Amino acid sequence: MKAINLADKLSTFAEHWQPRVVGQFNGHDLLVVKVKGEFVWHKHEDTDDFFLVLSGRMSIRLRDGVVMLGPGEIFVVPKGVEHCPVAEDEAHVLLIEPQGTPNTGNAATAAARRVI
Amino acid sequence: MKAINLADKLSTFAEHWQPRVVGQFNGHDLLVVKVKGEFVWHKHEDTDDFFLVLSGRMSIRLRDGVVMLGPGEIFVVPKGVEHCPVAEDEAHVLLIEPQGTPNTGNAATAAARRVI
Repeated sequence: MKAINLADKLSTFAEHWQPRVVGQFNGHDLLVVKVKGEFVWHKHEDTDDFFLVLSGRMSIRLRDGVVMLGPGEIFVVPKGVEHCPVAEDEAHVLLIEPQGTPNTGNAATAAARRVI
Repeated sequence: MKAINLADKLSTFAEHWQPRVVGQFNGHDLLVVKVKGEFVWHKHEDTDDFFLVLSGRMSIRLRDGVVMLGPGEIFVVPKGVEHCPVAEDEAHVLLIEPQGTPNTGNAATAAARRVI
């Protein structure tokens, strides 16, 4: 058993909006992702959506506002709430999702689940 | 809806081994804690135990070894596994636990649940 070093994991890939699974916790995947630009509007009917910014800055647009996030800041999008993640410059983020959750809220358009 | 700034939350208290609830995610509490010294050996029969070090360094002793953690490192103690968190100097940590989990694994000795 050993620690999961998030910076080391992030150094192994460059693609944006392609989360990598780095661990598990209570039936959830722990994922790191590099974000830049605008993602798609989506929602998850069955799960909250956890974001912790590790470096850089991002925003999470909601239909009735926007949440700005910097390093060391968490936002949990409640289940069923439409949102659109956006980052002007690259940011690195920890995500937590129930195992198998499609990142777009839709299995047909979701990024493949990759474990590193 | 707004971001949870972990450093701001940590600045509101000084006690060690007294987690504060700062948010919720899928039936779990998100907690910040300041650790220093040696906690107690314990286990959680029904939940994994999530640690993400935000600043400083800590160790998690296991019966068959030890896991060293620095900033940006995660360790998940599998449910049922005995462990003893230790920090030589103060470290700040994000914890994730099912709502109501006693931090010592035993309701009789657990820290009170405090929300900030």
